[in-house]
Amino acid sequence: MFKKKNVSLAVVRRLPRYLRYVEDLLNHDIMRISSSELSQRMGYTASQVRQDFNNFGGFGQQGYGYSTQVLYENLVKILGLDKNFKMIIVGVGNLGQALANYANFYKKGFRLVGLFDVDPQKVGKSIRNIKIQHIDELKDFIKKNDVDIGVLCVPSEVAQEVANLMVEGGIKGIWNFTAKEIEVKDDVVVENVHLIDSLMVLSYKLNEKLLEKQEASQK
Amino acid sequence: MFKKKNVSLAVVRRLPRYLRYVEDLLNHDIMRISSSELSQRMGYTASQVRQDFNNFGGFGQQGYGYSTQVLYENLVKILGLDKNFKMIIVGVGNLGQALANYANFYKKGFRLVGLFDVDPQKVGKSIRNIKIQHIDELKDFIKKNDVDIGVLCVPSEVAQEVANLMVEGGIKGIWNFTAKEIEVKDDVVVENVHLIDSLMVLSYKLNEKLLEKQEASQK
Repeated sequence: MFKKKNVSLAVVRRLPRYLRYVEDLLNHDIMRISSSELSQRMGYTASQVRQDFNNFGGFGQQGYGYSTQVLYENLVKILGLDKNFKMIIVGVGNLGQALANYANFYKKGFRLVGLFDVDPQKVGKSIRNIKIQHIDELKDFIKKNDVDIGVLCVPSEVAQEVANLMVEGGIKGIWNFTAKEIEVKDDVVVENVHLIDSLMVLSYKLNEKLLEKQEASQK
Repeated sequence: MFKKKNVSLAVVRRLPRYLRYVEDLLNHDIMRISSSELSQRMGYTASQVRQDFNNFGGFGQQGYGYSTQVLYENLVKILGLDKNFKMIIVGVGNLGQALANYANFYKKGFRLVGLFDVDPQKVGKSIRNIKIQHIDELKDFIKKNDVDIGVLCVPSEVAQEVANLMVEGGIKGIWNFTAKEIEVKDDVVVENVHLIDSLMVLSYKLNEKLLEKQEASQK
């Protein structure tokens, strides 16, 4: 598959949204869409959509638009979803449990292969038929099972320590839910989830509405 | 406070990251920073940083750079964090419980004032001294307490229905954790959290590394 080097992260972050829309089209048996229709639905410009897809060779045909099936298959490949990456969750508190039960992971081809915690109340119990193991087993487990992704759901204070264990075991990527920015060697990929950022964006929008109302009432 | 109309969402989404870095600087008693230093730390260009801040009047002084304290205070105001918005969580499953215990909300000034569920096993119990109420009480509670933000953590199948209840009660913003895109009237703000998007970005990066390795081994 054609792919430009160093596609910008801004483009990459839009790909999951494209996938969501294309899936929606397929679910409604819409087999073809123009770039202007697609862009309108998504709130981008048509030229933005074309530019985004051109990073990967473009999937459209002049005068035809996009085949939703072709778009879907390409997005799945580009996002690596056909690799069915193996995932473990470390820290099985409320968030870890919520993630373990998050059906969307499985629908997107990710495979949950292990759960880890230090709490003796939790170790030995199972979620979705996966036994919770003690964190002492973490390193060996990653090595033996060639795990791709470690989901970090531990308290912030031990985030770096647990990340180190993951890296020593040979993890390839860390999905970090802690408030801590973790440091890893260059060949390990980290994706941070800052839930609070999203809430602050909501707060910004609410505040904007408030200010608009105040202005209007002063007129 | 000076503020341009219609600041782009891309800029708004960067503000929480700025806040995080500025807080970090303050914690390390760094009271001043140049736009080039700040941009380097954050991986943006210096001109991007200046442009971003110019949307809000700019906070720097020629030749001095930014006072971290001034930056901090402005970002807090711009993001509406000084409003101490009132928040309720609807759906107290694992995710709802994780969010209720998410200390960062409280640090950022958000106030959790109510919890709601339909499960008779949960209704009446408390988390952080907040009693879980039945969803039948939701509408009245929002009205009486002038709640700003509703956090939607219910199963996708009932997402729209519960969102409707929130809107009827007079909610101002909905933080949507369901996989469903909900529809609300124009004056209600919605911020969707798609956890799977972030995992797909990680998957993209992992796949990119894989492809690089394959290419290297073929040479």
